[in-house]
Amino acid sequence: MSSHAGAVSQLVDRLSQLPGIGRKSAERLAFHLLRVREDEALALADAIRRVRTDVRYCAACFNLSEQEYCQICADPNRDATRLCVVEQPRDLLSLEASGAYKGLYHVLLGRIAPLDGVTPDQLTIDALVERVRTGNFSEIIMATNPTVEGDGTSLYLSNQLSEFPVEITRLARGITAGSVLEYANREIIADALTGRQKL
Amino acid sequence: MSSHAGAVSQLVDRLSQLPGIGRKSAERLAFHLLRVREDEALALADAIRRVRTDVRYCAACFNLSEQEYCQICADPNRDATRLCVVEQPRDLLSLEASGAYKGLYHVLLGRIAPLDGVTPDQLTIDALVERVRTGNFSEIIMATNPTVEGDGTSLYLSNQLSEFPVEITRLARGITAGSVLEYANREIIADALTGRQKL
Repeated sequence: MSSHAGAVSQLVDRLSQLPGIGRKSAERLAFHLLRVREDEALALADAIRRVRTDVRYCAACFNLSEQEYCQICADPNRDATRLCVVEQPRDLLSLEASGAYKGLYHVLLGRIAPLDGVTPDQLTIDALVERVRTGNFSEIIMATNPTVEGDGTSLYLSNQLSEFPVEITRLARGITAGSVLEYANREIIADALTGRQKL
Repeated sequence: MSSHAGAVSQLVDRLSQLPGIGRKSAERLAFHLLRVREDEALALADAIRRVRTDVRYCAACFNLSEQEYCQICADPNRDATRLCVVEQPRDLLSLEASGAYKGLYHVLLGRIAPLDGVTPDQLTIDALVERVRTGNFSEIIMATNPTVEGDGTSLYLSNQLSEFPVEITRLARGITAGSVLEYANREIIADALTGRQKL
């Protein structure tokens, strides 16, 4: 777009590389950033910069952290006998938001996905095995995503961890709270029947 | 989210203030920016910064520009007898993308909207009147949005410009190319009938 100031087209280009942001949205966002107060726009630029300079992975669990150990690993009140394995830091966030879990985490930073070229050695599996070997865990909870790849990753991990005296569990599957049976698909119904619980 | 690195929550907060970006999308974008190559993330931060430091309004037409005059105003090949009035720089972009217009532009930087507290003096109307007074235009094309406020703004402007010997036109209204009549609303059909053209 030659009619466009170079800096604007560059910003539009950059924004449209973000996931879920098409060309039109990128233009809308760029014009928004041109219109808002200057300090607001610059604060976003700084926040992006800071997240790349100040944030690293926790040395124990690979959660995002600004210190060597993340706030969860550093918290003495967490139950250090339980370890919940998740794919990504954002999964950890969802579990934390539920308030239903007080143990520690291990973030794999992905899932085994041969079709995408993601092999076990690209994940933090060695570190996980080492943690379970040297730690004092009684239960490892697999909280990978309920997908073919997530399930495959869990299965792979339970094999890797089978030599250790820990209980390995996974998140319950079934119908979701607040949903209606009518719209649940066959897989969900099958999971709910298989895992049915005493009333 | 106390489990979250401070820099990450700050970025999520900033991103979720963008139009059309909810909390979940902001989290997805933040994790994306954490995951991509560092230079890619920093390039976005720089692009935001640059757009605020390097871009200003063209001294003639108020399009966005990195020089005193924008590329369109500075182009001697544009037809300087026609002036197309648009609300925002992004509207100018749409018109340019069509390739159907070779004249100059004037960007109002908004539309008259009493309900939102936008009065004529907040727009670039004085500059427009001055341009038409001192310029050599034969036609002023109103290309404000086809909304109550856009139409109102056009009407206001034609009154302001009525003393000058220029033809004032507006974009054609009708059914849109590629659409189906079945889904056109009453207003569109009425416009199309009113403005019907000889075959």
